[in-house]
Amino acid sequence: MTTYHKPIDAAEVPRFAGHSTFMRLPAVASAEGLDIALVGIPWDGGTTNRAGARHGPREVRNLSSLMRSAHHVSGVAPFEIANIADVGDLSVNPIDLMDGIARIQRGMEEIVATGALPLSVGGDHLTTLPVLRAVSRGRTLGMIHFDAHSDTNDSYFGGNKYTHGTPFRRAIEEGVLDPKRVVQIGIRGSVYEPGEHDWAKAQGIRIIYMEEFVRRGPEDVIAEACEIVGMQETYITFDVDSIDPSMAPGTGTPEVGGFTTREAQQMLRLLGAVNIVGADVVEVAPPFDIGGMTALVGATMMFELMCVMAAQAERRRKR
Amino acid sequence: MTTYHKPIDAAEVPRFAGHSTFMRLPAVASAEGLDIALVGIPWDGGTTNRAGARHGPREVRNLSSLMRSAHHVSGVAPFEIANIADVGDLSVNPIDLMDGIARIQRGMEEIVATGALPLSVGGDHLTTLPVLRAVSRGRTLGMIHFDAHSDTNDSYFGGNKYTHGTPFRRAIEEGVLDPKRVVQIGIRGSVYEPGEHDWAKAQGIRIIYMEEFVRRGPEDVIAEACEIVGMQETYITFDVDSIDPSMAPGTGTPEVGGFTTREAQQMLRLLGAVNIVGADVVEVAPPFDIGGMTALVGATMMFELMCVMAAQAERRRKR
Amino acid sequence: MTTYHKPIDAAEVPRFAGHSTFMRLPAVASAEGLDIALVGIPWDGGTTNRAGARHGPREVRNLSSLMRSAHHVSGVAPFEIANIADVGDLSVNPIDLMDGIARIQRGMEEIVATGALPLSVGGDHLTTLPVLRAVSRGRTLGMIHFDAHSDTNDSYFGGNKYTHGTPFRRAIEEGVLDPKRVVQIGIRGSVYEPGEHDWAKAQGIRIIYMEEFVRRGPEDVIAEACEIVGMQETYITFDVDSIDPSMAPGTGTPEVGGFTTREAQQMLRLLGAVNIVGADVVEVAPPFDIGGMTALVGATMMFELMCVMAAQAERRRKR
Amino acid sequence: MTTYHKPIDAAEVPRFAGHSTFMRLPAVASAEGLDIALVGIPWDGGTTNRAGARHGPREVRNLSSLMRSAHHVSGVAPFEIANIADVGDLSVNPIDLMDGIARIQRGMEEIVATGALPLSVGGDHLTTLPVLRAVSRGRTLGMIHFDAHSDTNDSYFGGNKYTHGTPFRRAIEEGVLDPKRVVQIGIRGSVYEPGEHDWAKAQGIRIIYMEEFVRRGPEDVIAEACEIVGMQETYITFDVDSIDPSMAPGTGTPEVGGFTTREAQQMLRLLGAVNIVGADVVEVAPPFDIGGMTALVGATMMFELMCVMAAQAERRRKR
Amino acid sequence: MTTYHKPIDAAEVPRFAGHSTFMRLPAVASAEGLDIALVGIPWDGGTTNRAGARHGPREVRNLSSLMRSAHHVSGVAPFEIANIADVGDLSVNPIDLMDGIARIQRGMEEIVATGALPLSVGGDHLTTLPVLRAVSRGRTLGMIHFDAHSDTNDSYFGGNKYTHGTPFRRAIEEGVLDPKRVVQIGIRGSVYEPGEHDWAKAQGIRIIYMEEFVRRGPEDVIAEACEIVGMQETYITFDVDSIDPSMAPGTGTPEVGGFTTREAQQMLRLLGAVNIVGADVVEVAPPFDIGGMTALVGATMMFELMCVMAAQAERRRKR
Amino acid sequence: MTTYHKPIDAAEVPRFAGHSTFMRLPAVASAEGLDIALVGIPWDGGTTNRAGARHGPREVRNLSSLMRSAHHVSGVAPFEIANIADVGDLSVNPIDLMDGIARIQRGMEEIVATGALPLSVGGDHLTTLPVLRAVSRGRTLGMIHFDAHSDTNDSYFGGNKYTHGTPFRRAIEEGVLDPKRVVQIGIRGSVYEPGEHDWAKAQGIRIIYMEEFVRRGPEDVIAEACEIVGMQETYITFDVDSIDPSMAPGTGTPEVGGFTTREAQQMLRLLGAVNIVGADVVEVAPPFDIGGMTALVGATMMFELMCVMAAQAERRRKR
Repeated sequence: MTTYHKPIDAAEVPRFAGHSTFMRLPAVASAEGLDIALVGIPWDGGTTNRAGARHGPREVRNLSSLMRSAHHVSGVAPFEIANIADVGDLSVNPIDLMDGIARIQRGMEEIVATGALPLSVGGDHLTTLPVLRAVSRGRTLGMIHFDAHSDTNDSYFGGNKYTHGTPFRRAIEEGVLDPKRVVQIGIRGSVYEPGEHDWAKAQGIRIIYMEEFVRRGPEDVIAEACEIVGMQETYITFDVDSIDPSMAPGTGTPEVGGFTTREAQQMLRLLGAVNIVGADVVEVAPPFDIGGMTALVGATMMFELMCVMAAQAERRRKR
Repeated sequence: MTTYHKPIDAAEVPRFAGHSTFMRLPAVASAEGLDIALVGIPWDGGTTNRAGARHGPREVRNLSSLMRSAHHVSGVAPFEIANIADVGDLSVNPIDLMDGIARIQRGMEEIVATGALPLSVGGDHLTTLPVLRAVSRGRTLGMIHFDAHSDTNDSYFGGNKYTHGTPFRRAIEEGVLDPKRVVQIGIRGSVYEPGEHDWAKAQGIRIIYMEEFVRRGPEDVIAEACEIVGMQETYITFDVDSIDPSMAPGTGTPEVGGFTTREAQQMLRLLGAVNIVGADVVEVAPPFDIGGMTALVGATMMFELMCVMAAQAERRRKR
Repeated sequence: MTTYHKPIDAAEVPRFAGHSTFMRLPAVASAEGLDIALVGIPWDGGTTNRAGARHGPREVRNLSSLMRSAHHVSGVAPFEIANIADVGDLSVNPIDLMDGIARIQRGMEEIVATGALPLSVGGDHLTTLPVLRAVSRGRTLGMIHFDAHSDTNDSYFGGNKYTHGTPFRRAIEEGVLDPKRVVQIGIRGSVYEPGEHDWAKAQGIRIIYMEEFVRRGPEDVIAEACEIVGMQETYITFDVDSIDPSMAPGTGTPEVGGFTTREAQQMLRLLGAVNIVGADVVEVAPPFDIGGMTALVGATMMFELMCVMAAQAERRRKR
Repeated sequence: MTTYHKPIDAAEVPRFAGHSTFMRLPAVASAEGLDIALVGIPWDGGTTNRAGARHGPREVRNLSSLMRSAHHVSGVAPFEIANIADVGDLSVNPIDLMDGIARIQRGMEEIVATGALPLSVGGDHLTTLPVLRAVSRGRTLGMIHFDAHSDTNDSYFGGNKYTHGTPFRRAIEEGVLDPKRVVQIGIRGSVYEPGEHDWAKAQGIRIIYMEEFVRRGPEDVIAEACEIVGMQETYITFDVDSIDPSMAPGTGTPEVGGFTTREAQQMLRLLGAVNIVGADVVEVAPPFDIGGMTALVGATMMFELMCVMAAQAERRRKR
Repeated sequence: MTTYHKPIDAAEVPRFAGHSTFMRLPAVASAEGLDIALVGIPWDGGTTNRAGARHGPREVRNLSSLMRSAHHVSGVAPFEIANIADVGDLSVNPIDLMDGIARIQRGMEEIVATGALPLSVGGDHLTTLPVLRAVSRGRTLGMIHFDAHSDTNDSYFGGNKYTHGTPFRRAIEEGVLDPKRVVQIGIRGSVYEPGEHDWAKAQGIRIIYMEEFVRRGPEDVIAEACEIVGMQETYITFDVDSIDPSMAPGTGTPEVGGFTTREAQQMLRLLGAVNIVGADVVEVAPPFDIGGMTALVGATMMFELMCVMAAQAERRRKR
Repeated sequence: MTTYHKPIDAAEVPRFAGHSTFMRLPAVASAEGLDIALVGIPWDGGTTNRAGARHGPREVRNLSSLMRSAHHVSGVAPFEIANIADVGDLSVNPIDLMDGIARIQRGMEEIVATGALPLSVGGDHLTTLPVLRAVSRGRTLGMIHFDAHSDTNDSYFGGNKYTHGTPFRRAIEEGVLDPKRVVQIGIRGSVYEPGEHDWAKAQGIRIIYMEEFVRRGPEDVIAEACEIVGMQETYITFDVDSIDPSMAPGTGTPEVGGFTTREAQQMLRLLGAVNIVGADVVEVAPPFDIGGMTALVGATMMFELMCVMAAQAERRRKR
């Protein structure tokens, strides 16, 4: 009999009632004792165009009230096999970029120090940089990256090195990511120049453009991705703009021609063999959302990742 | 030369003009003389989370003004071969669940008594229970059920047996449905527990999860469904949440990863051989809709069903 | 130095961050030790037309994040002078009207039993009936009632006695309210029949129609209201549809020509001398709201009431 | 005992149920036997900027479901004292301006020929020109005109004489309106040139700008208006853009600083002594509306006008 | 080193800043010297139901701010190889259909006279008729036509020959289009009568219905289309309602079951061998759009067409 | 005969056509030769809660297309008496606060150096700080400040001195503003602590709270304001959140109970005697706006200010 945290039962308390937390789980003050810490990072200081992802965690919490207790395909019942709770939002600073990054790093370090694996909701994609720093703990990580954009540009607005278009360039420069173990899936949309991705490719990043994905399909692509990241520690980052704007309009930099949610779900469900040390869903921007559609997609992708991570936690425990 | 009811001609009266009825057909006081009775059931008393389907009939009527007079694939011109009209909305009770169910049943019995086949627009999915009772007329029906949810739970909120999550459990218990002739297509989304569908399966219901559908495709799946229901009387129920939330956001319980409208249309067009005794489109919830998108999907699915039913009416007449 | 609960400081944690509670106060498990218990009643089972107030507490919590710590006119700093917290939502039943009412009454009785005064957010106006039962504790209460509608009808839909159009008829019949100490302000809009309010007037209820309010102004009207309710225990109920639909569109039964928020604030600020035993803000229906406008009005009216109630709590303590 | 048409009783059939007609009255095929014919004119062919008023009648019908059976201030119960019904929409032509005008005129002439007084819902303000022609029947009419704009310009786009900015210039030139018996109330907003209203004033039209209205108030202004139009036949035209855009955003040419709905209601209620031969509410443009707010305002103003006209019908009958 | 016009650099000036032009290119007064003239045609005078495409150019300009400088699949950097600019909007007349058509034709003739190829944004589909007249310059054109509708009806509303449902019938009658070199792709939705497309087919137009497209896929279909139009001058017209309404809701005549944006992009990218003499994107109707979704699709399709046309301009120059 | 810039004539070119600029004036590259420079400042780097004002200039430009050429009350025809044009947007930096402020200051200094008076559209209220620095040119300015908030706090988030809650504290500390010549009108809403405004008052700022405004009315309040600022150079800053959220919902920090637009217009029209050296409209945040309502209010207030400033320019020229 487990004593893990359980969500409020929707057959007793309706989904619109009660405090709003991720997956209707208890809000806890610390990640201590958790296998997986669900955490919000309400910060979009790196956004170069349409801000709003700062409001992402609140709306993903709201829409995660539609999630239930078990996965209908894998049969995983995450709350039976892993201890999971909502540890709240990290401290942020909406008007000071470098302090914002520093606060996120410190907050995430506290979570990681407990041994819990973080599953966070941004926030813009620059939040993933301090998260990677905290999660890496001296290790160089692999990464499976779902996105419309490579986010490996160098700088904006006359030399600004830290924006949501640059985090993975920084992470590679800092040695936090091993570019040879990084795969980016779903990249598409017009580019600043024909050679925009040359730096990334030169580092060894494998870019699977949307067109290649369409030809090969989810299974083949994820098989390759798993091979690239291998058995070492790997981070999963899911930018909601990888999904088509018709399904995820509430994001700052939409690009038509994206993944369907079906395709995204299919891919996430195939990550069971990856050695996941943390994951996130980013760029849900509620001021641009429509009827909570994007927040629902974000909550669902979070649920998919949580089920994979819970099954891994169980396996680790049994070893 | 037929004397059947005809819609107002949009090349004479623009689509935004005139009283709003299903398919711009005449509003008639009784189903007497009709082959197919288009009817609204504005009731969502069984909704456990986000109510609003009570407003469904009005908005589906509005958007059905975009439908025209013939089917571009089958060539069926329904209003030439069957007598069809809008018989209005059934009497309902928005604040008394059991009275609401009873009123719907009585209203539907009156329609069925005329010999017209009902094609209704809900309302939440609990409305299908009293409709099935009325349509069955002592017979045990088969059912092809398009939905994200099985709707075969037992009870909610401390023993409430009648909600939009339970109608088909009740219908089977009451002998109105033959579970061995029930097929559910498109089921997906997180579940309350891994065994949530065990009861349904134990009764003999065939559940075709979304993932199986994606693998096999519309034609194969519908071929199996037709085999399951056989030549006996069968009801078709189409929950708009079977469609992906990007295409049908206006519904109470959205689940990402649903049918595309193309897939749904393809399936409905293949139902010609089924012995249809009634059909419905349910769970269109306008307060959650966006720009009438879901009501348009509802109206289109209604049109698809109407064309199939009209062709059957013509065949029956010719026999 | 007080040890009362304090809201999260928005100059440290931005308003979009952190768990969403009323006024950013702590979520507590019980009303024990509180002066004022902020509580949600997510239930709209009595709604005869456009449901949605069940979602009211969640959105009012979200928008109450814009409230700060002191009142700019009265200078009251409620969290310095009274112990206030968010006690969560009462248990409800969205599909069983009588059980819903019973659960609300039981939940409210528990709060009242601690000695805390409830300040609740509905929910539709039928929620006020079980709340009044719980708050009255054998006493007959007076009431100041801000609303577009008198809500003293007898029944709907063939004899249904419990809807959001009937609560105060029931409360008077039950002896919970003393009609001679009830004043209704802002009543307007078309009526079912010219004599619709005759029963209420015959009981002794003082109805101040919008037109009289416009002529006399907030101060004069509230002076009369205070005189009517006198020094005995009085409940304050604020239906957000008393406000003009341009300022509070998110409600089930809008009537143009309502209060401005300025007028409403002016009235609530004048209630200091009333012996308030509880208060509520009802009929905020987010599915019909626009940009959170109505939830912000609801949160602001809640803040106004809270400041008045906190000042009274301090005065009681000093006596 | 009257045998007049009655609306569907909302205490029996909920407001969201049943076919959508003006005031939930029966849809009738002809105005024969009616005192007041409620009629839609779904046409915006004269719109120079943001079209959409063609969709006005449908949405005003929908929102008029919120109207009830009696006036809470005057006590008038219109359906007890006058025979009123919904005669549907006039024939229009959305792509041919001159044919559109001609169809509207013919349709309105048929109504007027029955002796019924028309109360119509546009449509843009150019619809009032053919309506005035039909209603005048050789007489020169007075007019009380609520609007942000004088609509007495001469031409647009290189000589186009018929737009929604010119109807009353045309009506005066045609002798349908007597400019000395025309009063325009609420005129405001920037103008094309300082002398834009010189022509109108030179004809004798009395323009009461918003600023004068604010100084004098509804009663004084309407007293003057009644004096201007005198006891002869007078038409009432209510452009919904006379209302402030916060209350009526769904219109093509919004101007901030408009009437509140309270002020508008107050004015319409004072028209009892005017010899009203017809009235309209125009420029409700649903594609620019928000949550039905403007359609509700339109329906309410229609209700106010209907009550005044019904009382006049009763008085005429008694004479 | 080219001296072609360049867009404002978004890494210097954020996308939300600066004047709004197509692709952030300079606004120029004349097409002189351009290879491709980007031009708006803000006119929807031919719209039979839901107008609003008159607002299309402004919103497509706004959303085109999200486009960048190079194509990620073809590698084409259009602004390096062709001279492209925004020549503004053509003169239109919103209230006079025939004058509107004449103005568009004259405006387009001026552009064509400079030798620039027009890439325009409508406006409704009737705008394509005067554009074809101007572009043809005595030649009979082929056309690849992406649409849900054939737009080859004869007349509406009692003989009106010019609506957005008739342009290609007129163009064929006038000899501007060669029906044997016209292919229509994506046609679907209910039809006015089973034989609605008989005239078009009799002329030799090749209609590829959506169902055929789904079976064969983009590559096969475009291969056939290219064969049909051959090496002679061909116009490309892209009606945004060819896209599914979930991805392009902001249009006047939505039909469910449309192209995905992926499919549309795939098709447009295969048009390199067609002898394109002009192209357009039409029927973006912002009043019905949601969050700019449709304008973004329109801007993206415009970008795809621009890249193909720029590559052709470069090839022509090199010859 | 003036040779001043003129807006595009809406009776020739419809309001929805043509490039979008402030008041449909020409876009010019420099302020040289202008009396009044209309300029956008698309920057919200100082926003502590809901960002989005960066998108303000674009939407205010769009909605300013509804403005015409003359003022209906004052009779001022600004484009006849002053040279006015749209000088575009200032350079900004969305991700570096201090660089953003510096860029705005430099850009504004260039405008001011030409002798043109700036009338800008923000942007959040922190933009007014660098604008004041540029406009002051060594002088200490007075200011009339319309706002719900005093914006004189000291710091946020652990010492951040530059946010949209602090600009006027900084401006006073820097000697740019003379606090004894600063008047703030419309201040309201809950405060962080009872003494929040003590610093401002101690400096000599005159705060006219909303409640005092309601008692005294626009004329009396502006008379006092004019006296306070006297004949010396004065800046006018208009925060759109001074307006009630029902009229201006699209702003980051809404406070119910605000000015009506009528009141605001009345106040601005009375500023003719003030020695205005620049003015702005700030905090229009389109992502939170509804149907362009707030952008229309912003454009209208800009028009009102422009008319006052144009009349002053004419008077100066005549001296």
